[in-house]
Amino acid sequence: MTAPATATPAIEVNGGTYRFPAGKGLRLDSGATLEPLEIAYKTYGRLNEDRSNAVLVCHALTGDQHLASPHPATGKPGWWSRFVGPGLPLDTDRYFVICSNVVGGCMGSTGPSSTNPKTGAPYALSFPVITIADMVRAQAMLVGALGIEKLFAVVGGSMGGMQVLQWAADFPERMFSAVCMAAAPRHSAQNIAFHEVGRQAVMADPDWRGGDYERHGVSPSKGLAVARMAAHITYLSEVALQRKFGRELQRDGLSWGFDADFQVESYLRHQGASFVDRFDANTYLYITRALDYFDLASQHGGVLAQAFRRARDVRFCVLSFSSDWLYSTAESRDIVRALNAAGCRASFVEIETDKGHDAFFLDEPELDRTLRGFLGSAAQARGLP
Amino acid sequence: MTAPATATPAIEVNGGTYRFPAGKGLRLDSGATLEPLEIAYKTYGRLNEDRSNAVLVCHALTGDQHLASPHPATGKPGWWSRFVGPGLPLDTDRYFVICSNVVGGCMGSTGPSSTNPKTGAPYALSFPVITIADMVRAQAMLVGALGIEKLFAVVGGSMGGMQVLQWAADFPERMFSAVCMAAAPRHSAQNIAFHEVGRQAVMADPDWRGGDYERHGVSPSKGLAVARMAAHITYLSEVALQRKFGRELQRDGLSWGFDADFQVESYLRHQGASFVDRFDANTYLYITRALDYFDLASQHGGVLAQAFRRARDVRFCVLSFSSDWLYSTAESRDIVRALNAAGCRASFVEIETDKGHDAFFLDEPELDRTLRGFLGSAAQARGLP
Repeated sequence: MTAPATATPAIEVNGGTYRFPAGKGLRLDSGATLEPLEIAYKTYGRLNEDRSNAVLVCHALTGDQHLASPHPATGKPGWWSRFVGPGLPLDTDRYFVICSNVVGGCMGSTGPSSTNPKTGAPYALSFPVITIADMVRAQAMLVGALGIEKLFAVVGGSMGGMQVLQWAADFPERMFSAVCMAAAPRHSAQNIAFHEVGRQAVMADPDWRGGDYERHGVSPSKGLAVARMAAHITYLSEVALQRKFGRELQRDGLSWGFDADFQVESYLRHQGASFVDRFDANTYLYITRALDYFDLASQHGGVLAQAFRRARDVRFCVLSFSSDWLYSTAESRDIVRALNAAGCRASFVEIETDKGHDAFFLDEPELDRTLRGFLGSAAQARGLP
Repeated sequence: MTAPATATPAIEVNGGTYRFPAGKGLRLDSGATLEPLEIAYKTYGRLNEDRSNAVLVCHALTGDQHLASPHPATGKPGWWSRFVGPGLPLDTDRYFVICSNVVGGCMGSTGPSSTNPKTGAPYALSFPVITIADMVRAQAMLVGALGIEKLFAVVGGSMGGMQVLQWAADFPERMFSAVCMAAAPRHSAQNIAFHEVGRQAVMADPDWRGGDYERHGVSPSKGLAVARMAAHITYLSEVALQRKFGRELQRDGLSWGFDADFQVESYLRHQGASFVDRFDANTYLYITRALDYFDLASQHGGVLAQAFRRARDVRFCVLSFSSDWLYSTAESRDIVRALNAAGCRASFVEIETDKGHDAFFLDEPELDRTLRGFLGSAAQARGLP
């Protein structure tokens, strides 16, 4: 089939890898400086003349910059293509949408598999521990390098939502609005516990080799798959699992063995197996660590509202999902209370759904409506056409 | 220090390993027969003359027969010593308490590390898959061999509670009362999912050797520890984890690395490490499988009440814990509704606690009172002094 001659690209996709000039390394919370620094990013749509229509989307733990264009490794549509594109809530005919791979990531930004300039070998565990604030600092550097002084919006779910909060704490003057979905102001004991299980699963794999697997030409795929399986359960609700799988069998009758008898087993195994094709084990360690270290209040004398004291001009939208047990509605309410206490303008929506934490990138009409409404009204206030 | 001359054992402990005579194998739900069959058990207290004061306690997934006497491997007090002993709710001055290691177990009952008579080597994965009903059938054989026609009570929590329900379905005429704590009438999709993560963690360990680790003189300890860590999170409530650990650190300040920075990490690592000293990896696979296969209604045309239709003379006590998210109060209510529909006499108590699933063997005064009250009144009805 020949494409019609009048076809135009529905969405303008650009981006690449930005290498910061020498001397422009990333100062890290740990005290180290990461240099050289490369940040891989994608942009969707077109920056307007007065550079006022840029939206930064921050990705979650296992996400990446391939927001609304196919993933290079899997060929699957971008992880938020339901929401980003012409006519969609993040309308690329209207907004210039940027998404960058977090520092520490494995999709082109400087991370544990990058070359350590001191040794010429992959960093592996010599990569410094990074934080959510480090990720945000790198994004701010990128946004500056792209010539954008003030973002129209910073948007993210899960770890992306934590980055949104960190942006509001650290760079409030560089953002007009903020959307924080399915996030929390700090990692709870249970959150840390699940991450620790995942890390131990990776490190228990002999092919991890103390982190040096790349140099040995192996990969701790089995351990990483187990980590992903455990984490994946926390992304869904019990109700959704029951509705989707219940006790349905893969075949007629039980195997009386250890094959995947139940559909839920087969589904989880698939989640584990497909994850290792697109993700790096050391990055998994570093990013889960960054999440565990996240505690926004502790950076501000233990008072969360203090984190937002400079963000009074930012318009906030906080979203939670009723069946999310990873970062629950109660935690979103903590954020909203702190925003209120700081005198910020915040709208809060709890979306009723049984889809659990992952609802923020699933087909969820109320999320669609909420994003559309909030961004539309903010755009009007910002004077965007 | 010399023991005072008048000291008498506070609690009479007996037991051993019962080897069933040739020809007395265990018929399994899978169709196989397990022979020879050995069941390891302990008894506490003394059987009365008319053999009417026997209580069978069924243990949970990682429990064993060492109910109220020190564990031979760890030296720690029996797992239910808070509740079993002179003057305690399961008063050993009054009741003769029996606890046997489930078939498939690793504490002396025939299981995957027993010798396969056909090969002379450990069964390993040639051990047949077993079910909760198989465990109960073996218990019924043991109880018969001990000369007890009718138990005063069958008591259990978690997997033990499922065995109690199975007893009521299969041997109602051989029990006077039943206590089912923190259990469910079937394993949910989420329950299966967590177990599958644990099994995959074990099987991912190269030292598992397709189950033949014993023959190779190795042990999949790392995989089993990860499995235990993941499972352990489900035994506690988020609130309890937060109360107990929160974000408390092990030392002053963060390590900026992958040591156990947070107390909850250290706690989980300890849970994993100490578990592998007392538990067998293949038994973990087989028992989690038995749990996943458990669906009492499916054995009775899909109608749970049908499972209890012969149990109208049994007095039931069903107990749940408000913060148990592994087997929730809603699932205990399903049991109670089915008991009601079957015309059984059932009392139901939801105990308010933030201790989660594991509350059934923790210091929980309301559990103490409930057990004492229920068993006391049943004992009166049974004519026990």
